[in-house]
Amino acid sequence: MRSDAPVSTTTLRGQLQRCSINSATLGHRSPIDRVARRVADAGFGWIAPWRRDLEGVDVPSLRRQLDDDGLRVSSLCRSTFFPHATADARARSIDDNKAALDTAAELRAACYVLVVGGLAEGSRDLDAARDQVIEGIGTLLDHAAKVGVPLALEPLHPMYAADRSCVSTLRQALDICDLLSPHDRRFLGVAIDIYHVWWDPDLFEQIGRAGRDRRILGFHVSDWLRETGDLLLDRGMMGDGVVELNRIRRAVDDAGYDGPIEVEIFSRDTWWTRAEEAVLRACADRLETCC
Amino acid sequence: MRSDAPVSTTTLRGQLQRCSINSATLGHRSPIDRVARRVADAGFGWIAPWRRDLEGVDVPSLRRQLDDDGLRVSSLCRSTFFPHATADARARSIDDNKAALDTAAELRAACYVLVVGGLAEGSRDLDAARDQVIEGIGTLLDHAAKVGVPLALEPLHPMYAADRSCVSTLRQALDICDLLSPHDRRFLGVAIDIYHVWWDPDLFEQIGRAGRDRRILGFHVSDWLRETGDLLLDRGMMGDGVVELNRIRRAVDDAGYDGPIEVEIFSRDTWWTRAEEAVLRACADRLETCC
Repeated sequence: MRSDAPVSTTTLRGQLQRCSINSATLGHRSPIDRVARRVADAGFGWIAPWRRDLEGVDVPSLRRQLDDDGLRVSSLCRSTFFPHATADARARSIDDNKAALDTAAELRAACYVLVVGGLAEGSRDLDAARDQVIEGIGTLLDHAAKVGVPLALEPLHPMYAADRSCVSTLRQALDICDLLSPHDRRFLGVAIDIYHVWWDPDLFEQIGRAGRDRRILGFHVSDWLRETGDLLLDRGMMGDGVVELNRIRRAVDDAGYDGPIEVEIFSRDTWWTRAEEAVLRACADRLETCC
Repeated sequence: MRSDAPVSTTTLRGQLQRCSINSATLGHRSPIDRVARRVADAGFGWIAPWRRDLEGVDVPSLRRQLDDDGLRVSSLCRSTFFPHATADARARSIDDNKAALDTAAELRAACYVLVVGGLAEGSRDLDAARDQVIEGIGTLLDHAAKVGVPLALEPLHPMYAADRSCVSTLRQALDICDLLSPHDRRFLGVAIDIYHVWWDPDLFEQIGRAGRDRRILGFHVSDWLRETGDLLLDRGMMGDGVVELNRIRRAVDDAGYDGPIEVEIFSRDTWWTRAEEAVLRACADRLETCC
């Protein structure tokens, strides 16, 4: 075998310990400790909680339970948006993100996911929003290094450019990484979510770049439904949509990524109406057969 | 004034004769001859019919009416999709597009808009779809030259990559133009629609490229609503959304474009419920004040 031969496995069969369940996939219906137990019981090795799951929760106790269950934390979801109309509001978002980074450190999360925000309130200035994102991440980076949790900048689908993320492509996210931490790559990289980037004609080139630059901190799967009924809450289960999941997953692995593969599905009318155990079984089955 | 100074005007006030109404903006509620009369009466100099408007219509008579009304045709909307599961179906789509080009020539349309299609039926192979698009346009190009109607390749928003267009960015569209007609640029170019490209971090660079390469054949305006309720039928009237319309319009003009500015708004629950004359008045007002 040549030394530069692909290292990805053909499928993920038998690799559930490498896979993670993002708590949103279960619709935030149960307390996080119960969700975590179910995720572990279903055979997964990782979990990704949202900050909303942690409200009122004693984080050290949760971390001990996760240890008992053999679960690691693939990411903490997610940042407070950076762009705002006033400097005060921007400063508050930085403070809030710092506090979340502290929590991520307590959970020993593999990364803190940055969903950066779209346009500031009442603004049409996308360039200004992007500048504020760059400034905000730059400010946060020291704290990330201090607490030892990398920032995973996640480009979101362009349909969220106005309200959720003015960072819309993997190329753009990697350019920001290069700008802010050209040399020390330990604390700033990207999260690649199939749902957001599958359409991009530049995808495989940028996955290769991200791998060469050792920037891939997270990899999220779901599926794009050909008949998508809602811009936010109609993601598909892997295999139910049109994304070349296995091809993209293997490209990410071949780029050198060997971290967790996280299932993140917002599906108000389908998967969030089903029993949590059934959703977890479907995730396991589809990860093993489609990814 | 320096010779390379921008040539765009500050606003479009007084320039309705340069502006066009795409018939979809009025919701396809009236016969095209009545729509055309209203568009002319409202002061516009151009109209863009859809092929569905022409079913059962005597095209030479319509052309004579448009001449009487002083209306030119900014584009004929739009191509039959190119990707299909079988070679037979692909051949039929080419034949259908050739017939539409003949109609476009009868109407003396400034261009024929190519909305190229997404994935073939039952397919997840985006590369194959893109190859079929390139092959299809390549095949159509001779006929376009023969009848003298340029093909305007329109990149569509990435949220349509599965079902409407596997060409998602202006860069990608221009790459296809370069591939298929690197030298003779008369019959292949792009239509730039603000709704589809406004989010692109690469937008202004690619507008500049398109202008230098003399590829801009059409320019469409509407607006992206921050709270978009439907993936297809919830476009905003200019000024009601978040797009930097004036900045983009001026960039397109500064790139050397002096053709029609076409309003294309799909708005099932808002503008399609209002009287056609009221919609046309709003278009005129917003073009003059926001674009």
